[in-house]
Amino acid sequence: MSTESPIDANRAAYYQRIAREQLAPLWESLHNLVPKSPQPRAVPAIWKYAQIRDLVMQAGALISAEEAVRRVLVMENPGLPGKSSVTPNLYAGLQLILPGEIAPSHRHTQSALRFIVEGNSAWTAVDGERTTMHPGDFIITPSWTWHDHGNPSTEEGGEPVIWLDGLDIPLLAQLDAGFAESYPEATQPLTRPEGDSLARYGHNMLPVRHTASDPTSPIFSYPYARSREALDTLYRNGELDAWDGVKLRYVNPATGGWPMPTMATFMQFLPQGFKGRTYRSTDSTVYCVVEGRGVAHIGDAQFAFEPHDVFVAPSWQPVRLDAEADSVLFSYSDRPVLAALNLLREARD
Amino acid sequence: MSTESPIDANRAAYYQRIAREQLAPLWESLHNLVPKSPQPRAVPAIWKYAQIRDLVMQAGALISAEEAVRRVLVMENPGLPGKSSVTPNLYAGLQLILPGEIAPSHRHTQSALRFIVEGNSAWTAVDGERTTMHPGDFIITPSWTWHDHGNPSTEEGGEPVIWLDGLDIPLLAQLDAGFAESYPEATQPLTRPEGDSLARYGHNMLPVRHTASDPTSPIFSYPYARSREALDTLYRNGELDAWDGVKLRYVNPATGGWPMPTMATFMQFLPQGFKGRTYRSTDSTVYCVVEGRGVAHIGDAQFAFEPHDVFVAPSWQPVRLDAEADSVLFSYSDRPVLAALNLLREARD
Amino acid sequence: MSTESPIDANRAAYYQRIAREQLAPLWESLHNLVPKSPQPRAVPAIWKYAQIRDLVMQAGALISAEEAVRRVLVMENPGLPGKSSVTPNLYAGLQLILPGEIAPSHRHTQSALRFIVEGNSAWTAVDGERTTMHPGDFIITPSWTWHDHGNPSTEEGGEPVIWLDGLDIPLLAQLDAGFAESYPEATQPLTRPEGDSLARYGHNMLPVRHTASDPTSPIFSYPYARSREALDTLYRNGELDAWDGVKLRYVNPATGGWPMPTMATFMQFLPQGFKGRTYRSTDSTVYCVVEGRGVAHIGDAQFAFEPHDVFVAPSWQPVRLDAEADSVLFSYSDRPVLAALNLLREARD
Amino acid sequence: MSTESPIDANRAAYYQRIAREQLAPLWESLHNLVPKSPQPRAVPAIWKYAQIRDLVMQAGALISAEEAVRRVLVMENPGLPGKSSVTPNLYAGLQLILPGEIAPSHRHTQSALRFIVEGNSAWTAVDGERTTMHPGDFIITPSWTWHDHGNPSTEEGGEPVIWLDGLDIPLLAQLDAGFAESYPEATQPLTRPEGDSLARYGHNMLPVRHTASDPTSPIFSYPYARSREALDTLYRNGELDAWDGVKLRYVNPATGGWPMPTMATFMQFLPQGFKGRTYRSTDSTVYCVVEGRGVAHIGDAQFAFEPHDVFVAPSWQPVRLDAEADSVLFSYSDRPVLAALNLLREARD
Repeated sequence: MSTESPIDANRAAYYQRIAREQLAPLWESLHNLVPKSPQPRAVPAIWKYAQIRDLVMQAGALISAEEAVRRVLVMENPGLPGKSSVTPNLYAGLQLILPGEIAPSHRHTQSALRFIVEGNSAWTAVDGERTTMHPGDFIITPSWTWHDHGNPSTEEGGEPVIWLDGLDIPLLAQLDAGFAESYPEATQPLTRPEGDSLARYGHNMLPVRHTASDPTSPIFSYPYARSREALDTLYRNGELDAWDGVKLRYVNPATGGWPMPTMATFMQFLPQGFKGRTYRSTDSTVYCVVEGRGVAHIGDAQFAFEPHDVFVAPSWQPVRLDAEADSVLFSYSDRPVLAALNLLREARD
Repeated sequence: MSTESPIDANRAAYYQRIAREQLAPLWESLHNLVPKSPQPRAVPAIWKYAQIRDLVMQAGALISAEEAVRRVLVMENPGLPGKSSVTPNLYAGLQLILPGEIAPSHRHTQSALRFIVEGNSAWTAVDGERTTMHPGDFIITPSWTWHDHGNPSTEEGGEPVIWLDGLDIPLLAQLDAGFAESYPEATQPLTRPEGDSLARYGHNMLPVRHTASDPTSPIFSYPYARSREALDTLYRNGELDAWDGVKLRYVNPATGGWPMPTMATFMQFLPQGFKGRTYRSTDSTVYCVVEGRGVAHIGDAQFAFEPHDVFVAPSWQPVRLDAEADSVLFSYSDRPVLAALNLLREARD
Repeated sequence: MSTESPIDANRAAYYQRIAREQLAPLWESLHNLVPKSPQPRAVPAIWKYAQIRDLVMQAGALISAEEAVRRVLVMENPGLPGKSSVTPNLYAGLQLILPGEIAPSHRHTQSALRFIVEGNSAWTAVDGERTTMHPGDFIITPSWTWHDHGNPSTEEGGEPVIWLDGLDIPLLAQLDAGFAESYPEATQPLTRPEGDSLARYGHNMLPVRHTASDPTSPIFSYPYARSREALDTLYRNGELDAWDGVKLRYVNPATGGWPMPTMATFMQFLPQGFKGRTYRSTDSTVYCVVEGRGVAHIGDAQFAFEPHDVFVAPSWQPVRLDAEADSVLFSYSDRPVLAALNLLREARD
Repeated sequence: MSTESPIDANRAAYYQRIAREQLAPLWESLHNLVPKSPQPRAVPAIWKYAQIRDLVMQAGALISAEEAVRRVLVMENPGLPGKSSVTPNLYAGLQLILPGEIAPSHRHTQSALRFIVEGNSAWTAVDGERTTMHPGDFIITPSWTWHDHGNPSTEEGGEPVIWLDGLDIPLLAQLDAGFAESYPEATQPLTRPEGDSLARYGHNMLPVRHTASDPTSPIFSYPYARSREALDTLYRNGELDAWDGVKLRYVNPATGGWPMPTMATFMQFLPQGFKGRTYRSTDSTVYCVVEGRGVAHIGDAQFAFEPHDVFVAPSWQPVRLDAEADSVLFSYSDRPVLAALNLLREARD
């Protein structure tokens, strides 16, 4: 015996009829489609480096960098299972390269960032220029530029190197805008000496005939030494925001904009004892701890953090950060996407 | 008896172990995550107006505009079932408003466009100004502006009115950037007379102290009469592109950019006998036929089109358009999103 | 017997010595070079059309349009004698073209505007497109575009036509940036029908593949009928600024910016009885009365104005406008120059 | 007996008549007003430091920095006598500050740059931050920011310091846009420690909440050490333009644009034996030699140059530079003005 009312039955029959025409009644889903405020499926999450470092190293025995093309463990947000996504638009992974290995050259429309976690010997080559990686360096491989990575042999001073990869893979899947190519050789030819792009573009000067044809930064590597010095100087000079501590964003020196059009990157300093106030924002952020320790409060979650831990704050979740020791956090988010579409909202308590 | 090799078994065990830490091996999914070219799940599709108009009218008996808030049949792309999406980023629906009805006032961060299909009596009110709708008019309700719709009673000249709604609902869901509010009354107060925004901003002049605080167009309604005249004049003046026919884009007169930051809108004329050449683009496009008839070739599909039919071309699908009679097509796409992120690619054979 | 002190004598001798090295002592001129506020040499001035129209017509007997190249009486600011300047950066002149005449084609880096004063038969051709002139029309001949003017013979309906020319000649002299060329023929070939640019760019739509390579407006003619209608509608809709009345600026529809990079243009309506409040600005403005009559108070001057009178307000002079009948004023100024260099200041009492 | 023809007499009488109405015949001056190419009155010129340094030092005995407000010898272009102008838009002067002196605080809409010539002890304070000057440093005092200069006493290590002042004084006079104020005290209060702006904005990072409200650079001092290192690295990396040598422009790191809206600044390296090719440009440029020696060919002039010499190239004059020793040249020009108004033209042979 059905308890369905005649009206309901009527509507159900109608819904079946229109479904055959690939039509659906908006009024049944309007509140879900147009919510009062963001309802992210992604959840706050943390990856404790102490817990996963061994797993990363084990991957080195399991598969070679060359076979894997990129030997990376992808961090999957528990709210987005099977999607290789740390937030709806962003991807995060830990990449391992062992002494004597190379990760072969390719390019794709996805933008990528590397944030170096441990090890000093590996290099990445981007668009004909090689850069040696050091912990804390922020390196970009812009959309559609050839890039490959390598590590000298143990004899030549190579040691295992691990970095955090940040990409906009899920965003480009959503946009159906992914293109990719492999380079015919394992490594691309080098056309410029190391340090060239930083010398050319990194000193608040630009070559007089340079014109920005592209929204991506002409600097490939932002060394940690300079970022750390900037944070220190500002802290000594009395800059301390109650929400952010001392927080800087990386900049494309040719435009003043973000280094890449889809991902923002930040570095911030929280002095020992800092108890941050609560903010929220419509961009989703991935943090990687460089130094120090503390607690991140994100939504209902509390995460104790230590060096190399990675944690994530979804859209519009309240976030506050406490530091138990002087701490430095790198972070990246999809802020440029929200900003470009006039959809960035922030609230600070 | 298992045929699994020791290596495979090894890897499988490892994959289980890392899965517990919310980690996944990139090398198993790299080719899917970083494809050689876009692999849209959305498919080419058409909604024949002759086949669905009755269903739209039946919705009028099923539920009132006020109860439904918006009485709309959503066009669901067959490749994106259950997602209320006509393309990954876009929503399309046919909205019906009967004489004497109102659709109550609300606002949301989703941007919306109305393209009027049939009927002349209804009005829409946007940000304190009411506009009467006529077939072929293109009307915007920008992000976070109050809007409501209504139709005079039959006695006052009301007739059933149907229009196509285009929104960026799926994009904002992906971005976790949706906010919404209902207005306390069914209709917002009117603060400016009809025609004010067009007089103020639509004559290639702007109020001397106007400053664009927002990327959305200050014009709410782009009347068909003017669009049609522009197409006609250009066609008479010899403009005919082998791919596009005569194709114009709607413009925000305060910036020269798109009327809204997430959706581009176009109107094009194809003369009788036009056999368009093939193009593809990374934006996904929804077409609505205004006049004429012809055939749209999209990927492997062929769609005969007539007035009011709606069809869709996903990213990177080859598209060519033939006209059997002088034809006018309105279309909208997510081009501004792709362009803002430097991800717009086009190819013309 | 000199009353000069030893210090003065000392300094005078020193000044002579350094003058031989092309050096001068800043401290003797600092206050003049860096004044407390603008000290324009240009003065408020008016040219009464009733007084000068006959002189303009007499020029027609004196020299042909073709011999003169441009048969124009230049309005010289009394504060800038011999400089062919109405303000430091701007030129103004009344141009006469008689039935059957042509003014031969040339181009120059100076930007020019025409504001039609009387007569309906003449045409101007800009960049391959001819436009018929009507009183109140605002027409541009952008930098480095070919342009020529003509008037049909009396038999073909030609009548004497007079317009106001506005150019940035003094600015380009200051910038040493003037280039010019004559076209090999008296008139350039026409490549597009009349009305093409307005149809293409004037309806809040743009050709889909148009890219603005240039800061100048792609519309050549802004007809008075449309400007007047916009003013009327806004006035009926309650727009009335206590300083400006109803004031619109002309816009480049491809950018939302000024029609030309060096000159701003405005049209404003002052209803009968309007008593404007006082404002001042660092741009210098030339007004041309289209309709009505009233009084312009500029600095210490008071000018009764009638149709076709031209008057000028130098930088930072207090200006207020009274209307004794419904009045329409066209004006142009060097505002884009000041704005581009971050030097535009305004004060409204 | 007059040889004047009746036509000439006629015209002369007419010209007198119209002159009384402040009108002039365009056809008599058209070719001068609209020249085929730039006809600068400014001429190529050089100031040999060896010849004028003593005169600068003598000014120290003649007048105190405080009495002079700014103790500067102005370099007057021989083609622009009495105008305190080195080019039509630019001013150049050598400023001397002795140990124990201050130059009192003021601000003005004129933008200023300092390029340090000799001496290491003086400081300049801009907008609450003090910077110590070193030879080769490029320092800005943007429009409408308080600035003062000082030098410690001899006992505290002060030595005479000379720098080149570059300002846009003549441009602002032409634009009637000059405003100025004196600070009530001789020196403004310091609100930020030395080095703050460079730390904050100079490392390719920006404070996360910084928004550029202004087109001027937030960095006040661009130290020579960094500029020189950039030139060296690029030269070692094979950058050598046949016209420019290695040439960099200073950049506002918040926008990628010029440090100030009216003046461009450059630093270039010419290796020993460099024989530059010929170029010309519509901007007018002032050069100051930092290191090396060579010959500048400008128009018909040839100037042998040595350290601290200042020479000037007017608009559109052919320029080529030869280096007899490794040479470094600082230069500034009005390029941003030309570029903003779409009037920058360059030619390279």
